[in-house]
Amino acid sequence: MYRTHTCGELRKEHNGLEIVLAGWVQTVRKFGSISFIDLRDRYGVTQLLFGEELNKELTESPLGREYVLQVRGTVSERSSKNANLATGDIEINVRSFSILNKSVTPPFTIQDDTDGGDDLRMKYRYLDLRRQAVKKNLELRYAVGRAARNYLHEHQFMDLETPFLIKSTPEGARDFVVPSRMNPGQFYALPQSPQTFKQLLMVSGYDRYYQIVKCFRDEDLRADRQPEFTQIDCEMSFVEQEDILSMFEGMIRHIFREVKGIDYSEKVVRMTWEEAMWQYGNDKPDIRFGMKILNLKSAFVADGGQVARGELIAGAGFGVFDQAETVLAIAVPGCSEYTRKQTDELTEWVKRPQIGMQGLVTIRYNQDGSLKSSVDKFFGQDKLKAIAEAAGAEPGDLLLILAGREERTRKATSELRLEMGKRLGLRRENEFKLLWVLDFPLFEYAEEDNRWVARHHPFTSPKPSDIPVMIGNDPRIADADKYLEHPYARIKANAYDMVLNGNEIGGGSIRIYQRELQERMFAALGMSKEEALHKFGFLLGAFEYGAPPHGGIAFGFDRLCAILGGSESIRDFIAFPKNNSGRDVMLDAPATIDKKQLIELGIISIRPEGEQS
Amino acid sequence: MYRTHTCGELRKEHNGLEIVLAGWVQTVRKFGSISFIDLRDRYGVTQLLFGEELNKELTESPLGREYVLQVRGTVSERSSKNANLATGDIEINVRSFSILNKSVTPPFTIQDDTDGGDDLRMKYRYLDLRRQAVKKNLELRYAVGRAARNYLHEHQFMDLETPFLIKSTPEGARDFVVPSRMNPGQFYALPQSPQTFKQLLMVSGYDRYYQIVKCFRDEDLRADRQPEFTQIDCEMSFVEQEDILSMFEGMIRHIFREVKGIDYSEKVVRMTWEEAMWQYGNDKPDIRFGMKILNLKSAFVADGGQVARGELIAGAGFGVFDQAETVLAIAVPGCSEYTRKQTDELTEWVKRPQIGMQGLVTIRYNQDGSLKSSVDKFFGQDKLKAIAEAAGAEPGDLLLILAGREERTRKATSELRLEMGKRLGLRRENEFKLLWVLDFPLFEYAEEDNRWVARHHPFTSPKPSDIPVMIGNDPRIADADKYLEHPYARIKANAYDMVLNGNEIGGGSIRIYQRELQERMFAALGMSKEEALHKFGFLLGAFEYGAPPHGGIAFGFDRLCAILGGSESIRDFIAFPKNNSGRDVMLDAPATIDKKQLIELGIISIRPEGEQS
Repeated sequence: MYRTHTCGELRKEHNGLEIVLAGWVQTVRKFGSISFIDLRDRYGVTQLLFGEELNKELTESPLGREYVLQVRGTVSERSSKNANLATGDIEINVRSFSILNKSVTPPFTIQDDTDGGDDLRMKYRYLDLRRQAVKKNLELRYAVGRAARNYLHEHQFMDLETPFLIKSTPEGARDFVVPSRMNPGQFYALPQSPQTFKQLLMVSGYDRYYQIVKCFRDEDLRADRQPEFTQIDCEMSFVEQEDILSMFEGMIRHIFREVKGIDYSEKVVRMTWEEAMWQYGNDKPDIRFGMKILNLKSAFVADGGQVARGELIAGAGFGVFDQAETVLAIAVPGCSEYTRKQTDELTEWVKRPQIGMQGLVTIRYNQDGSLKSSVDKFFGQDKLKAIAEAAGAEPGDLLLILAGREERTRKATSELRLEMGKRLGLRRENEFKLLWVLDFPLFEYAEEDNRWVARHHPFTSPKPSDIPVMIGNDPRIADADKYLEHPYARIKANAYDMVLNGNEIGGGSIRIYQRELQERMFAALGMSKEEALHKFGFLLGAFEYGAPPHGGIAFGFDRLCAILGGSESIRDFIAFPKNNSGRDVMLDAPATIDKKQLIELGIISIRPEGEQS
Repeated sequence: MYRTHTCGELRKEHNGLEIVLAGWVQTVRKFGSISFIDLRDRYGVTQLLFGEELNKELTESPLGREYVLQVRGTVSERSSKNANLATGDIEINVRSFSILNKSVTPPFTIQDDTDGGDDLRMKYRYLDLRRQAVKKNLELRYAVGRAARNYLHEHQFMDLETPFLIKSTPEGARDFVVPSRMNPGQFYALPQSPQTFKQLLMVSGYDRYYQIVKCFRDEDLRADRQPEFTQIDCEMSFVEQEDILSMFEGMIRHIFREVKGIDYSEKVVRMTWEEAMWQYGNDKPDIRFGMKILNLKSAFVADGGQVARGELIAGAGFGVFDQAETVLAIAVPGCSEYTRKQTDELTEWVKRPQIGMQGLVTIRYNQDGSLKSSVDKFFGQDKLKAIAEAAGAEPGDLLLILAGREERTRKATSELRLEMGKRLGLRRENEFKLLWVLDFPLFEYAEEDNRWVARHHPFTSPKPSDIPVMIGNDPRIADADKYLEHPYARIKANAYDMVLNGNEIGGGSIRIYQRELQERMFAALGMSKEEALHKFGFLLGAFEYGAPPHGGIAFGFDRLCAILGGSESIRDFIAFPKNNSGRDVMLDAPATIDKKQLIELGIISIRPEGEQS
């Protein structure tokens, strides 16, 4: 061993001890004829004192930043201690040293506030990984993984590995494929998730399965998507939805406790997908703050009995509201005194192409109880007050109202709510609010093909009460314009998402476990019998040999870590991430390969390198 | 939840308890007007008693094997207990039952001694996985993984994930490649191991890394090789070989204790590669038994000072020995009374094509001290006795002697030794003997290209004393016939293998961490500067920024589990293995993919499906 101790562990009580340390030179400070060097390793930083004799040697072989150094010396209590450093009570009186390796000057500083830009840091990721900020993220990731494993182990889950070279059955996202040299003309696919395998394991009787596992999706990358990502993938047999919810609330509570020291003892909030859409405008609301949406007019079909408060705006003669499909309002607390400039800026904000609204109606609910609006002409004090109070506003609040097409307006209102929450500091990094969103629709309408697609995936079961609706109706959509009136549009899934601070961190469902129902589902998605058998024959077969009722969930491990780490970017929590073009700029991958390799694989490229698809 | 208890947990003390169980019907036995059913789940088997009333219902809806059943009833102490069953003290008086799912008749019985052949069991792997024998293997696998993780965690190792979509840098085995849709004409590769990434993590200062990780090699499959396999992959910084050996002896001891309940407190044997080759004829000897090789004549170049005992056979005029490159003997204990038929059978055994020898010379060292040999004509009693004693034989033993070309004869002697060990019951399944094999050659000679290849991999460091030999000599081999005389032939690597019962379970090395030496190594392997930069520029670059001394090891997780489970087949320890053609016969993968997918990827197949490469 090149060391007796790490750079993070020496304390006052080691005073006088002979030690050997090894690490990286963080800084060199000369004071006349002596030098102080901060030596860094994974565990911390220790100050080294080079006395007069050794200092001369340093002049002959000077130490640069990031040199790898081994020193022998004695621990010595410092006279002026550094309370900011765990080892700040001591320093090392160096007796001899040895340069284990040199370093050229790094392209950026190895510090929390590095001067390296994103591209540079990705190219030299091995240097970026030295920074304390990145190291903390990966340590947190390790801690989250370990906490999850320990919890699942305590609850009889078994880590069972599923294969990576599987069969291509694209549903939704594209598969990455792998040409098989031994089986010419044939391809493996990399798994988008171990979904069918974990279900087979349930059929096999391994009633509690988990895996922390890489998954692959060949999608056009948006910011903060990775072609390979990690899931905490879980499945259980003989369970109903409630069992899954309580088991995995428990897991997240355990992770909070172990990793963040947070006792999340409050009840996890639950709401239906319809409530989420109605009250927050999206299916993963951030419930750290209120500002619920007041639906003044809506085309959204909610079974939950919600009715838009159309009477509050009807008959006022305001064309924008009257002609809009949807009118939605939020009450922003404490902002009634926003200046004209501020409300104009908000109007510009909602008119940006990403939001895409035509304008913004404001109502100030002044502290004195009076109301002032950009649409005073149409709405008197009483009407304004009725709207404000329906939105839950109090004197001092500012109402923001958007009107337009249903989907865009709802999305815009949701974005505006989040933006105001952020501006008002209501989305606190160290506050965590968990939420279950339940009762998702089973199907989504795919306009291009005029057919149903699975909202979650084709293995999700309908609510038991909706099974007759699914079996008793033809899935075909006769009139594309009236797809919302098709019985399938209202079928609810036995599916659930876990949401943390406005991010979906996990999702799952109770699965179909009967061959007939699974076949019906494939048919509903427009799959022919032959196609279903070709792609999923093994699963349909398995369901004939005593498949138990089962369900599961998968957590997005990268995302979970990012949120627990107080970041919005998953890339900061991945040791070697890819950029938005799916490239590893450090490796320079993907890359061309030898002709010989291609010939062995029996494939040729038909697009020249660099041509975009 | 569909159950209050599992089928493995009810005992006498639960007598009278109302419970709900769910599981699979193992057997149905009718006794007059009542029925006994064995209900099975992952945790065990519980006997159910269906009384007269319920038995009538059973007649209406009969239960078949592997039906999924839920029962409500009362725990009742049995009058005639079954000591072979953990739940054998009780049975369940069933009050009501519900068939959760039916099963058609399985294609083979779900029993330890199943009637299913290999192909059938692989096709219906989800049923095969229900068998107790397979379940035990996967449970052992989970336990081994968990024990390894816990040990490594206790020793400050961090599980850090490395990417799966990397760059193709084939060295030795072929890479599986993945066409990139977003980067036309370019390919990712799947990692053969995370080797370069774990070294980068050392450069980044994460001084103790591990990962239990899938690796991929596109090799022509031999029996018991899988295209995807799992490694326990580890790396440490600031260590020398001794540190690695003791750390990972510790890990294996921990696994023995946790998984097998074995306290492996004895010292782990160590031998050099040359000793292993000289004494056992291969580099992963099974040292559960002796029968070391007596080298009577050898072309094997050993630096360890071993000299063949040529004087024992010289001058006897026996042409076979005189003309052979190599003559090797083993003394098989207690077999001097083998019949002529038995020794003839052994002769046939060594003449099989897999062994490929011309014949076998035997010497019986009889109990009375006399010797009898098939080559009595050439060797008198004294000479025979001298040979026997040099081989360590005692009266009652049988000497077996092989002669021929060096490599084949050594391999054959090693095989013969293992075969005799097996026949004599010396390779006991429940005896475990660990061994470190050290000081491997750094290079191997590749005849086809007349060049050196890395025996381990190109990142393995030479022994410090051999670095000058490597730097001071031209790697080119002027005379192919005399490659053994090239200085590179004698360079030893800082590499080590861990061997368990004659199987390599892990291997690793101290790595090169200096750019110049790494460049020298690439050059020695015949790589041009450009090629080295193209393939490994990121690593060479990283070595310039303060790379610490480091080393590591990787364990073959599948193999380790198989040996601990007392099996020779890794396939039994993988949930969803592939067959020897790299096919998953359950999924029917690999398979053809849609033209549309290929076009999106910008590739076409140039070999028709089914044509072999």
